[in-house]
Amino acid sequence: MALIVHKYGGTSVGTIERIRRVADRVEQAVKDGDRVVVVLSAMSGETDRLLKLAHEITAVPDERELDMLLSTGERVTIALLAMELRGRGLDARSFTGRQVGIMTDSAHTKARITRVTAERIRESLAKGVVPVVAGFQGINEQSDVTTLGRGGSDLTAVALAGALKADRCVIFTDVDGVYTTDPNIVPSAKRIDKISYEEMLEMASLGAKVLQSRSVEFAAKFNVPLEVNSSFKEGKGTLVTREDADMEAVAVSGVTGDRNQAKVTVVGVPDKPGVAARLLGPVAKANILVDMIIQNVSHESLTDFSFTIPRVDVKKAVPIIQDAAKDIGAKSVSVTEAIAKVSLVGVGMRSHSGVAAKMFEVLSREGVNIMMISTSEIKISCVIDEKYMELAMRALHAAFGLDRAPAGDRPARP
Amino acid sequence: MALIVHKYGGTSVGTIERIRRVADRVEQAVKDGDRVVVVLSAMSGETDRLLKLAHEITAVPDERELDMLLSTGERVTIALLAMELRGRGLDARSFTGRQVGIMTDSAHTKARITRVTAERIRESLAKGVVPVVAGFQGINEQSDVTTLGRGGSDLTAVALAGALKADRCVIFTDVDGVYTTDPNIVPSAKRIDKISYEEMLEMASLGAKVLQSRSVEFAAKFNVPLEVNSSFKEGKGTLVTREDADMEAVAVSGVTGDRNQAKVTVVGVPDKPGVAARLLGPVAKANILVDMIIQNVSHESLTDFSFTIPRVDVKKAVPIIQDAAKDIGAKSVSVTEAIAKVSLVGVGMRSHSGVAAKMFEVLSREGVNIMMISTSEIKISCVIDEKYMELAMRALHAAFGLDRAPAGDRPARP
Repeated sequence: MALIVHKYGGTSVGTIERIRRVADRVEQAVKDGDRVVVVLSAMSGETDRLLKLAHEITAVPDERELDMLLSTGERVTIALLAMELRGRGLDARSFTGRQVGIMTDSAHTKARITRVTAERIRESLAKGVVPVVAGFQGINEQSDVTTLGRGGSDLTAVALAGALKADRCVIFTDVDGVYTTDPNIVPSAKRIDKISYEEMLEMASLGAKVLQSRSVEFAAKFNVPLEVNSSFKEGKGTLVTREDADMEAVAVSGVTGDRNQAKVTVVGVPDKPGVAARLLGPVAKANILVDMIIQNVSHESLTDFSFTIPRVDVKKAVPIIQDAAKDIGAKSVSVTEAIAKVSLVGVGMRSHSGVAAKMFEVLSREGVNIMMISTSEIKISCVIDEKYMELAMRALHAAFGLDRAPAGDRPARP
Repeated sequence: MALIVHKYGGTSVGTIERIRRVADRVEQAVKDGDRVVVVLSAMSGETDRLLKLAHEITAVPDERELDMLLSTGERVTIALLAMELRGRGLDARSFTGRQVGIMTDSAHTKARITRVTAERIRESLAKGVVPVVAGFQGINEQSDVTTLGRGGSDLTAVALAGALKADRCVIFTDVDGVYTTDPNIVPSAKRIDKISYEEMLEMASLGAKVLQSRSVEFAAKFNVPLEVNSSFKEGKGTLVTREDADMEAVAVSGVTGDRNQAKVTVVGVPDKPGVAARLLGPVAKANILVDMIIQNVSHESLTDFSFTIPRVDVKKAVPIIQDAAKDIGAKSVSVTEAIAKVSLVGVGMRSHSGVAAKMFEVLSREGVNIMMISTSEIKISCVIDEKYMELAMRALHAAFGLDRAPAGDRPARP
């Protein structure tokens, strides 16, 4: 009798009709002999409705009060699903984050889980009760309600699965899994049957939106097998799990594209120890996340220094960087917003050489100029002109054989 | 520095604009030097919206789950008001029923308060924080959310005022006080400045809708001065308090009318000990509240037995009563729905004789036939034909001098 945590997102519980379909799925799982714990998000649109009320009150709502407000959304859906399940004769019970012991720090609106007791869930399961838990929320040490930020309900599900040593945590969402690349850009994208935590982490941070990095990190840490599947249709999803021999056979698992970055170049930087810190320190202090960093070879003791920042932070960042540049005696600062980062991800890169070389060759063949390069053990990213992003993704997807066969069944390549 | 509990109902917090007006009032009270505890209902319409969702799920929603669902409404308003107050520089904090220690039994949807700790309110007040508390909700011993039923937010306010030994509990609502009678029926109705708990209890149970009996009972028990006032305009309200010399001077404080009753007559009942119990026992067992009971003098060992029940229960009650009537060998059962109960209330009745006689005289002069009479120390009720209710109320209101002068200033009458 497997213990499975089901998590359903906002669109999956967005209407009464859809809540009934979630109940169908839970009922079926129970009939199949699983013990099920359900974690729900708020109905889609509800969080926006509540945020709108808060913003009618004030431009910058107090964060503790915002958590009190936003945490109501999940309570509505858990009550409704529990009613529906009970109406069908299933002994289901709704629980808030507090009631199942999701303890967090006090960073309101983006709290981190510090501990999970899950006591009432264990009691419920022992009695054959199906617990229906509010995602996205917990309480801090003062017993105040906190929320977990973006992807918070996934995090609740993964954390509970970890605490309960569940056999699997299934994230039911509006897509049926993780794809080799964005199907909106590359129609031949295939669903991946199995992917490692590490690859999923790289893909999530590179712009694959189906899972948030935090949830994947948590799943990896507690070794929770994580499945992404569709709440709207039956069929296989993607299993995110520990790396196994199977996976290593594949050099490249996925291609991602990210157009949320901007490139900043500081021209004519004196090539002396400490200038990088003096340039980037003030940027970090302003809570702006610097992603890729490149320093060119110097000519006559002057060098160019380039890095990428989130495009939304450009306005805030530019004056800070200009001040810092002046400070260190650099010549000028230029900003390019129209860039994109295209990446290849795959644990197989560790054992397959030549992936980078092939990537550069493909891009060159398509006439795409590479502005910046960054690599990790299982990832290669290139910054290119934004207008070539789709072209580059399609070319790379084809060149690495990702559109050849259903991803799960594709043959191992040398 | 007085400690005042403010309670605002659903219409008073029904829109963002109205929440701001509540904030104005709270801010003013704080500026005037009061320590203020605020208790709020859900936005008007919100409870209906949530109930509609529940009833789309199932005709008879599980009551524990219904409480989980309905208790979200107040959390929205307390968060919004706390944001607004904080935006104005007031250190306000929202608290749920649980957080302020409203402990209840487990009778979901109609829980009774068993204990109030109010610890976090005391801490807040000591630090100069304005606590904004969710009305209508508490938790039971299992730490499950419960709701307090109709008038529950008033009850929260009164219970907190009692626990905190507050100087006053003000119920801000859409009317500016308790009236000598229903102003919609008798335009010359006057606002009462001061009324005793007992009178208010009688008036509440007789159909004056501004306060629920439960809250008045609670206020009387803990001797909390209770004020009813308008949240929309400035001015005096009605103070509900202990009986004082002032009040006794007035024979009649108010006139009420209630058309929610129906009269049942069992004809030809054998006049033997025990028949009343055998008739009414099954009715009580079906949770139907019998109000007035009359037994006529018997002729040839047969009597007629009449009583009133809530009109909404007629369908359920009739077959039960018919069975019971058959059981005791009675002749027949007749039901009259078109009745009304008109009542006079006043602590002064204790010391003023002749109130009943005058009431009968007034009704007789207007040609109104009296079907049933019931009296208590401070109340006289007559059941009459429903079509005469407004006429009877107007005539009695005038005859007892209630429309003569502003109620609070009206002269003591012998």
